[in-house]
Amino acid sequence: MNVLIVLAHPETRSFNAALMKTAVARLESAGHAVAVSDLYAEGFDPVERASHYVDIDDGVFKLLDAQRDHAKRQTLPEEVARELDRLEWADLVIFQFPLWWHAQPAILKGWFDRVMVYGGRYSSRMRYDNGYFKGKRALLSVTAGSPRQAFQPFGRAGDMAAWLWPIHASLYYVGFEVLAPQVSYGVQGGGIEYQKQEALEAHLADCKRHWVERLGHLESEDPIPFAGWQDWDEAGVLRETAPLRWRLG
Amino acid sequence: MNVLIVLAHPETRSFNAALMKTAVARLESAGHAVAVSDLYAEGFDPVERASHYVDIDDGVFKLLDAQRDHAKRQTLPEEVARELDRLEWADLVIFQFPLWWHAQPAILKGWFDRVMVYGGRYSSRMRYDNGYFKGKRALLSVTAGSPRQAFQPFGRAGDMAAWLWPIHASLYYVGFEVLAPQVSYGVQGGGIEYQKQEALEAHLADCKRHWVERLGHLESEDPIPFAGWQDWDEAGVLRETAPLRWRLG
Repeated sequence: MNVLIVLAHPETRSFNAALMKTAVARLESAGHAVAVSDLYAEGFDPVERASHYVDIDDGVFKLLDAQRDHAKRQTLPEEVARELDRLEWADLVIFQFPLWWHAQPAILKGWFDRVMVYGGRYSSRMRYDNGYFKGKRALLSVTAGSPRQAFQPFGRAGDMAAWLWPIHASLYYVGFEVLAPQVSYGVQGGGIEYQKQEALEAHLADCKRHWVERLGHLESEDPIPFAGWQDWDEAGVLRETAPLRWRLG
Repeated sequence: MNVLIVLAHPETRSFNAALMKTAVARLESAGHAVAVSDLYAEGFDPVERASHYVDIDDGVFKLLDAQRDHAKRQTLPEEVARELDRLEWADLVIFQFPLWWHAQPAILKGWFDRVMVYGGRYSSRMRYDNGYFKGKRALLSVTAGSPRQAFQPFGRAGDMAAWLWPIHASLYYVGFEVLAPQVSYGVQGGGIEYQKQEALEAHLADCKRHWVERLGHLESEDPIPFAGWQDWDEAGVLRETAPLRWRLG
């Protein structure tokens, strides 16, 4: 496989960077080719705006028009085109990031805003199980500060599946098969008093071990099931005949 | 009331900007004071990183430590301090933004990453119903491209409540009472063929009318109910004795 890892963390010596390096080593040793989009190191600008586009009308900035027209003319912003080339190459995309404010860091949110271009990578018909990236797989590898039990459905930190659902849905929207997330809980590398350096390193070793083990059999995993075009009526609402599992959520 | 509107849209002639202006006019005519944080116009940088901080150690960038220490010494980055001053002043905060990739635009996601500083605005005990901003209210005013029915729980575009849940949870985390969102559906200002300018303007007039009507009685609205400290046990999991509604959520 060709594997792209999209890393979103500002510190090269972070827990997240360590998990990225672990994945690179493990995947390469198994014969896969690996590329890394290090969004912080590459200075990725996550803010979508008119100034990224050449030859834009003086009129109202219409975001979707700008994306569609520049995708068509192959004049997309350089860093967007670079990310799209990497996605074209990849069979599997791993997103490595810390959960900040119940979501991905802004630099990675903007990667979706800018790279998943309208017209080029999705349209009203080219979505979901008819999405552009059909046949490719994606996986979120996430670190979170609170312990696992706090992220249970009835936990104080909120259901982890709910926090990742918008990102999972975005990936499925453009056609990816989405594998179950790899979540490393209880990562408090921010220097909080009650997790000392030694404990943090032991915890990292533990998380690495789980990650390495899983990376060995990603290819045989079943993706998260999503409803698809055959399940929706013309108004975009689930049909009565759709499998019961979509109603049980 | 003092009302802060945080606007996240790149185009000053957008549907979102129009809804912001409508709110300013309506609120001021009712005698409230209104301030606007126009994140695009002010060039807000949503990417949290070491270079925003002065006098930082040469060592590993520990995000939470940096936020806590600079909040304590009152040396937070200028644009963060400015946003915090505005929040201090406000009784109600309205976030006006388009739903991009099942979430807020990156520039607004990064507003949370950078402005909600650890130590200064939250800590392990200063959270939820013991949050810093207790007594203040917040409301999301969101535009979305697909029609209302597609955003139902069984709709193709996904349950709108699920997309807004991470943001609502973040606001509650720092103590805000969160009012029900104001969602303007079917907003396709991107120049998509099947919604012409005339139809768009009629739709805007309609959305403005609903918004103006609601702005007149925000003060008497009940906030969205959330579980609180008394509902969780020491491990951070919902107690058996917690109100049944938290389990039916």
